Order: sequence, then C-alpha cells, then structure tokens
Amino acid sequence: MSETRRRLILDLDTGVDDALALAYALGSPDVEVTAVICSYGNVSMRTAVRNTCAVLDLLGHPEVPVFAGADRALDASSPFAPPAGVRRIHGENGLGGASVRGWCRTAPQSALDLLRGVAERGDDTTYVATGPLTNLATELVNVSGLGAALGRVTFMGGALAVPGNVTPCAEANIANDPAAADSVLRGGLRTRMIGLDVTHQVVLTRDDTAAWRELGTPAARLFADMTDHYITVYRQNNPQLGGCPLHDPLAVAAALDPSLVGCLSANLRVDLEGPTRGRTVCDPDRLRDAEKSCEVALEVDEPRFLDYFRLRMARALA
Amino acid sequence: MSETRRRLILDLDTGVDDALALAYALGSPDVEVTAVICSYGNVSMRTAVRNTCAVLDLLGHPEVPVFAGADRALDASSPFAPPAGVRRIHGENGLGGASVRGWCRTAPQSALDLLRGVAERGDDTTYVATGPLTNLATELVNVSGLGAALGRVTFMGGALAVPGNVTPCAEANIANDPAAADSVLRGGLRTRMIGLDVTHQVVLTRDDTAAWRELGTPAARLFADMTDHYITVYRQNNPQLGGCPLHDPLAVAAALDPSLVGCLSANLRVDLEGPTRGRTVCDPDRLRDAEKSCEVALEVDEPRFLDYFRLRMARALA
Repeated sequence: MSETRRRLILDLDTGVDDALALAYALGSPDVEVTAVICSYGNVSMRTAVRNTCAVLDLLGHPEVPVFAGADRALDASSPFAPPAGVRRIHGENGLGGASVRGWCRTAPQSALDLLRGVAERGDDTTYVATGPLTNLATELVNVSGLGAALGRVTFMGGALAVPGNVTPCAEANIANDPAAADSVLRGGLRTRMIGLDVTHQVVLTRDDTAAWRELGTPAARLFADMTDHYITVYRQNNPQLGGCPLHDPLAVAAALDPSLVGCLSANLRVDLEGPTRGRTVCDPDRLRDAEKSCEVALEVDEPRFLDYFRLRMARALA
Repeated sequence: MSETRRRLILDLDTGVDDALALAYALGSPDVEVTAVICSYGNVSMRTAVRNTCAVLDLLGHPEVPVFAGADRALDASSPFAPPAGVRRIHGENGLGGASVRGWCRTAPQSALDLLRGVAERGDDTTYVATGPLTNLATELVNVSGLGAALGRVTFMGGALAVPGNVTPCAEANIANDPAAADSVLRGGLRTRMIGLDVTHQVVLTRDDTAAWRELGTPAARLFADMTDHYITVYRQNNPQLGGCPLHDPLAVAAALDPSLVGCLSANLRVDLEGPTRGRTVCDPDRLRDAEKSCEVALEVDEPRFLDYFRLRMARALA
C-alpha cells in the first residue's frame, strides 16, 4: 500500500503569520512541504530565509529545502528593506523579537530549476504564496508549462470589498509589487485569492497563545512569544479585530480545503497608478467573460478554520 | 376573489434608464406603481418630475401620483444641475433628446406624508431608488417606523468589486450624495444594492430598439429614440460593453424577483473624504457582525433578466 501525501510548495516572506502558516502546513495530516521559496515583504528576502530555516529546525523539519527567491519588486533597483511600520508589526527580526536560532542554508538549486522539474514531471503540487507575487510572476515567465502543472494557485493578498491595510485601497502584498500581481492575475493562471475580505474575519486571541505555552516545548514558547507580539500590535493598530488576523495560515488552509471559504468567481486586475495603486479590482474588460480565472474568497467559516488551526498548531508545536 | 398586486414606490432621477425602469414596472404583471418620488441626479429634480409625468402619460398611466423630492444633496447649498458629462449621457432634456410632452404636475401631498401613511397602515410596499439616496435618507429620519414598514429597500448604486463610473472608486448615484448613502447603509435599514458589479453585466443593443420601433406606437418610438441615444454614448464611453447597461431596470427587476441576482451579505459604509470619496465598501467595524444589513448583488442571470425585460417592455410599449 502506498500513502499519498499532498505536495505543497510555500512561497513565504517569513514574518509572524508566515511562520504560523508554515506550522499549519507541517501540522497538517497527509501534507508534505516539498519546498519553501523565500520572498521579501514582511522582512528582507535574506531574513525570510533565516527565519524559515529557524522555524523549520525548531519544528523538527530541517529536511525541507529552502530557496532564495526575489529580493525586490520587478521594477525596484535595490533589495527591499522593510519600512518602520512593517518592522513594528513583525518585530525587528520578523518573528516578533522572539529569540530564534537555526542553521541558515539555501538549496543549491534555484527555485526556477525546482519548478522546471515540477512542470516537466507533472507533479501534482499545490502552490501557496503569502508574500508579494514577484516570485510567482517571475516563475510563470521563466518556467514553461508551470501554470498548467500547478493548477489553481492560492495567494494571500488583496482586498476586493474591504479597505486595504497600507492605503484605503491596497493590501500590503499587492502594494509591494502591483505589476507582478497584475501580471499573475491577468496572465491566465487559475488563482484563489485569500485577501483581507476573509483574513480579517479569522482572529486569534491570547487564549490560544496561553494554551500553546502550556505545551511547554521550545517551539510552543517561541510561537507564543512571537504571536503575542503580533496580537499586541494588532490590538493597537486594529482594536476592532479583538486579536490578530490569521492571514497566511488561512491561505494554506483554504488551499488544502477550499470548502472553508465562499468565493466569487472573477477576473481581476491590479491598479498600477494613482491613489488606487495596488488595488485588486474586477477587470472591466473581462467582466462579462464566461471564463473566470480567480476564485476570490469573500466568506469564511471562522469556527471550522479555527478548529483546524488549533489542531494543526498543537501537532506542529508538540 | 381579490387580486393582490405588489405595491411599488419608485424613487427616480428620471433620465433614460429611469424611464426604462418605470416602463419595466408598468409592464410587470401584478405590480401597481403607487407613486413616483422624484430626485435630482441624471437631471435636476424639476426635470425629473417633468420627464416622469411625460413617460407616465405616454405609457397610459397618468393616474400614478408624482412627488417632488430632494433637489440637492444633504450638504449642498443650491439645487443640483447636471454637469456636462451627465447631460451628454442622458441628453439635454434627460431623455436622450427624444421629444416628449405631458401634463407636468406633482401630488398635492408631500412624499413624507405619503410615506407616513405607508408606515402607519403597515402597507406591504416595495421601495426602489434609482438615484442618489438623498430622498431615502431624509425619509428615514422624518418618518417613524418607515424602515420596518418597507422591509428590504433596493437601490441602484455603488460599486463594490468593480471600478466606479465617475472616479476609480465612486459610482454616480453614491457620488452625488455620499453622506446620504452612508447614513442609509449604516442606519440599520435592510437594503439590496444593485451596483455596477451587476448592471455592467446586463447590456442592451440596437437589436432591441429596432424591435420596439416595429411596434409602431408613439411610446415605442420615443423609447427607441431615447435608448438609441443612450447606446450611442455608451458605445463611445465604454466600448467594451457592446451596448448600454440596464442599470435602473435591473434594480426594479431584482426588487420584484431577487433570484435574478447572486448576493454577498455585507455591512457597507461609504467613504466620505479623499480620493475614494463615494466608494461603497465593507465597513471594517462591522465585518464580523453576524447580522448583515445589505445584500450586495455581485452576480446576475443576464439571459433571464433580458427575457423579463423584453416581455415587460413589449407590454408597456404596446
């Protein structure tokens, strides 16, 4: 008898909620995290590599290969460094100031070679991006047949029917590289958007981090420290939420079980100029097309997601 | 045996598509248009009264009472006069330049007295607004119990997931009085929003106006002339639509048969300041409330709506 495990590639800009998303994936039954490709966003790309390696080591999965991805937006001239507001949310080290160690390494292969292999072999692989879509845009241009091989790609980002979190219209991941997001959304790839529309509806409180502390493991302590920092900042910035939104874990969860979210089928574009720069919005030129490339999550089953999240975190942190 | 007819109050800023909406209502079986309350928007309020009376006379319904409503936004200091862009879309007379005559009159009662009667008697009345929400905001403040009496109010306006038509974020009816729309949407009234999300998906072409001309009646000729003007302007301004959107008729149709549209249940607010002024957006402060006051139409069954529309127009214009 052969056991089939779901193969998952994560594209992370590893700050606090990316670490939670990684733990969610590692704690999921029948899922194999085959690679993490790092991006800039919540932190610099180099810090994302360091944080990813540290979290993988801490959670007992040093075997997962970590790839260096984009360190800047498609049109940027220098590597991305997180601005003060972002450093405040995720902490100076990107993990809420929690003390982390780990063997920082990247895979010898490039992420593009990894994905060429996936496309050639037709591996059944689920791809989830929780940072800017720069890696994905680059991969789709450079790896022939990748879109078909990956099926529907899930990304955390955007805000369709709710205000943005960096401007009234723009969510941070899209704002960090609007051109990359627009090329992904208008390039024919099938996508699932897990944006602020739903991530602001899944909220974690200190009750959960207190429960993690009771597990007593180093991993549980680190995740509790890191997440308490994140909750503190969110309670200052967004007091109406009553805790911290689980942005990136929801993206992984919805990729693995799409029934967690209710979606609008739509064709999206990204505004590239002016005060709405970075907005995800239905593309008027494709509004009446029968084919819709994106499933935009607008509703979420919060109680069921939180049940899943607690179970998987308990497994990952034990 | 008593026949029950659905009682309908229309709140119109009678330009071209309001006239189509009025014809849709008059051509609907088992519907009684009990009143038209006029507003500024596509035209001045006084022109809306004149156009409404002319269309009612032409369609053989001079008995429907016409009420003078708001002539300006809540915070405006002088009566509204349509700007050049609006006069171009709806024509200088608001009916695409089509020649209309009629006995221009308004009801001796005020619209508020009319609605006080509705609220007191608990009449089962459907209210549809196709202009700015100034009348509705004023009525809700001044008529006690009106919200409960009207049930769910349908309005044409707003843009949740698509760009606006006066700015990248704002649709014209909301842009004309953002404060009124915000007070309606955050005031507890149950609403159904028929915005550009769906009205840009229901498009009429000259095939239909040609069919009307063959009916040979004065009403059919006027509606064909008026709508041909509207189609011409839309084909210049929005060539990707391939015709004219049926904004206001869809609002009446969805009020009478909500199964024509697929909706997101949401709590909305209107942005009142800055570059997004006039945007309809989910209210972050009420995102996780179990109670949602608005049904926001995001999907529409265009073929079924067009069938309904053609049938009712043929009845009204015969």
